[in-house]
Amino acid sequence: MLAASYVGDRTIDVREVAVTPPGPGEVQIEVAYAGICGTDLHIFHGSMDQRVTTPATIGHEMSGRIAAIGSGVEGWAVGDAVTVMPLAWDGTCPACLAGNTHICQNLDFIGIDSPGALQERWNVPAGVLVRLPEDLRLDHAALVEPVAVAVHDVRRSQLVPGEKVVVIGGGPIGVLIASVARASGGEVAVIELDPARRAAVADLGFTTLDPTATDQVAWVNEWTGNAGADVVFEVSGAAAAVLGATDLAKVRGRLVVVAIHSVPRPMNLHRVFWRELTIIGARVYERQDFEGAVRMLAEGRIPADALITAIEPLTATSDAFLTLESGKAMKILIDVQSERRR
Amino acid sequence: MLAASYVGDRTIDVREVAVTPPGPGEVQIEVAYAGICGTDLHIFHGSMDQRVTTPATIGHEMSGRIAAIGSGVEGWAVGDAVTVMPLAWDGTCPACLAGNTHICQNLDFIGIDSPGALQERWNVPAGVLVRLPEDLRLDHAALVEPVAVAVHDVRRSQLVPGEKVVVIGGGPIGVLIASVARASGGEVAVIELDPARRAAVADLGFTTLDPTATDQVAWVNEWTGNAGADVVFEVSGAAAAVLGATDLAKVRGRLVVVAIHSVPRPMNLHRVFWRELTIIGARVYERQDFEGAVRMLAEGRIPADALITAIEPLTATSDAFLTLESGKAMKILIDVQSERRR
Repeated sequence: MLAASYVGDRTIDVREVAVTPPGPGEVQIEVAYAGICGTDLHIFHGSMDQRVTTPATIGHEMSGRIAAIGSGVEGWAVGDAVTVMPLAWDGTCPACLAGNTHICQNLDFIGIDSPGALQERWNVPAGVLVRLPEDLRLDHAALVEPVAVAVHDVRRSQLVPGEKVVVIGGGPIGVLIASVARASGGEVAVIELDPARRAAVADLGFTTLDPTATDQVAWVNEWTGNAGADVVFEVSGAAAAVLGATDLAKVRGRLVVVAIHSVPRPMNLHRVFWRELTIIGARVYERQDFEGAVRMLAEGRIPADALITAIEPLTATSDAFLTLESGKAMKILIDVQSERRR
Repeated sequence: MLAASYVGDRTIDVREVAVTPPGPGEVQIEVAYAGICGTDLHIFHGSMDQRVTTPATIGHEMSGRIAAIGSGVEGWAVGDAVTVMPLAWDGTCPACLAGNTHICQNLDFIGIDSPGALQERWNVPAGVLVRLPEDLRLDHAALVEPVAVAVHDVRRSQLVPGEKVVVIGGGPIGVLIASVARASGGEVAVIELDPARRAAVADLGFTTLDPTATDQVAWVNEWTGNAGADVVFEVSGAAAAVLGATDLAKVRGRLVVVAIHSVPRPMNLHRVFWRELTIIGARVYERQDFEGAVRMLAEGRIPADALITAIEPLTATSDAFLTLESGKAMKILIDVQSERRR
C-alpha cells in the first residue's frame, strides 16, 4: 500500500509500505479522505521535529470504512463508515483520574505521536472509532475532527442562545467556530485582516469586520448597546489580537483562547480585573464533541462544501502542503484511495 | 468635626470641617475605625489624581455606629453597629441590568470617587449599610471590607473543600485570601519573597514557600502528586509571578487574578491551552461577600489581631500612610474618634 510520510527537511514522501493485519483490539480502516491542518503544517515546517519520529505517517482528520477487524473487537462490521478521535490516554495520570482524559498528562496524539491517516490501510485501536451515519458524505466526514475542535471551543465558552459572539480570525477553525456558534443560537461577527478570507466568511452569511478599517471596540460597543460581546474567541494567534481581545468583552464576558501561542503574550489583566472577565483555555475535544460534530455535519449546519477548497490525490500530498502554506486554501483533503482506483 | 483629606503632593491634612445633617435616605455614622489599604496608598502617591477631586476625604474600610438618621430611612436605629459596602451603582448600565451591579460601568466607589470614612461623622445612603453583630469588636469589624474582597475572590475561584490552593503574595489581601480559603476547606500554601512577611504568614499556620530558595513548580508537583494546584491566586502584582503562575495549576485548574496590573503582562497562553486552564478576574464584592465576611470575622476565622499591626489616632493619619508605604505593616487602623475623647 501507499503511505505519505514526513521525512524531515520540508519533505513529504509517498512510498510503498507493507500492509499489516489489525492486531488484537484493532480495526483496519480503508481511509477515504484525510484533511491537512495547521498542526500538520507545523510538522512539515520542522517545528515539531523534537516530537515526531521520522519517517512519520501523519494525518489525524479523516473518514473511511472498516476493511478488517482484529480479534476481540465487538460492535463493528467490515464496511462500516467511521472516523477516528485521535487521542490515546494512559488512564492513570492525575488528569485522567479526574476525568479529563482528553488532556492526559501523557497523551498520545494519534497522527502526531504515533502513525496517522495518510495511508491506504490504517490500523487503530477500536476504542478511537466514531460511527458515521450512512447519509453523511465521506468527504464532508473528513471535517469531523476540526468541527469537533469548534464544538469543544463553543462548549467551553458556555454559549447561551441569543448571546453575541466575536471570532477573531477567519481561517478554517475560526469559520468552524463561527458556524458552530451560529448553529448554537449565537449572533456572530468575525474579525479578519485578509480581504479574500473576509469575503469568503461574508459569503457564508457572517458579519465581518476589517480591523484596519473599523474601530473594532467602537463597533462592538455599538452592536451590543455599549455592553460588549458575551463571548470572544481568539483564533488568530496574533499578539495584537490577544492584547485587544479583552476590550471587546462585556462585564463577566468570556474569552476563549483557541490559537496556539508558542511564546508568552502581553495581556491586559487590568481589563480582566475591571470587568471580571474569564479567560478559558480549550484543547482538542471529548467524545461528546465528536458526536456533536458528526450530528452537525449530517444536519448540514456546517458549510462543508465552502470549506473544502480542493481534494487532491495521495501522490500530490506534498503539493497540497505547499498550497496550504501559501494561505490560499481553507481546507485541502487528500483522496487517500486515488492510486488504488487507477 | 475633624476630617483627614488627601490634598495632593503626598499630603494628608487633618482639618476642622462643618458637620452636615444626614439628607433624605441617608444616615450619619460616627466612624469608629478606618483601615488604610493599597488603593488609599495609590491615591496618596498621586497615581489616581486623574480620578479623585481634592481635597479628598478618603477611606472605605471602616466600622462605626449610627449617630443620626435622615428622613425616609427605615430599619435602622441610632447606636446600631454598622459597616459600609462602599459601592454606588447607576442601576441602568448594561452590567447593572445583567445583575452585576458591583461592576457597574459607571460605578461610584465611595471613599475614592466620593467622600469616605476618614471623618468623625460620615453621611452615607442607607442602602450601603451592612449590620454588624454586637459581639464583633469594632476594630475587627474595620476589616470587613478587605475580608469581603477575599471572600469574593475565593467565591470566584469556585473552591471546593479539600482542594489545594497556592496564594502568590503574602501581603494583607494574600493572607486574607489564604484565611478564607482555609476556612472554606482548602489546603493552602503561600508564596512570599519577603522573609518578615513569610514568617508572619507561617505564624498563622500556613505552609510558606520562598520562591528564591525553592523550585516552586517542583514543590507544587510534589505536594499535589504531580497534578498541580486546583486554584492559584495571583496577589503579588509582579510580572514574573503572573508568567509563572500558570505552571502551578493542574489540568482544568483556575487562576484568579487578584492583583491590579496597570500594564499588560506576558502570560503563558500555551500553558492555558495545554492544560485547559481558566483565568478569572475578580473585582470588589457583592453583598453576600460582605455578609460572609461579617460572619467569618464574628466566628473568629480571620486572624484579625495578627493582621492589625497598629491603631493610630486620626491626627497621625499622614504618618500611618508613611509606615504603610515602608512595607513594614500589614494593616493600620485609624482611631477616628481619638480627638473627640481627649
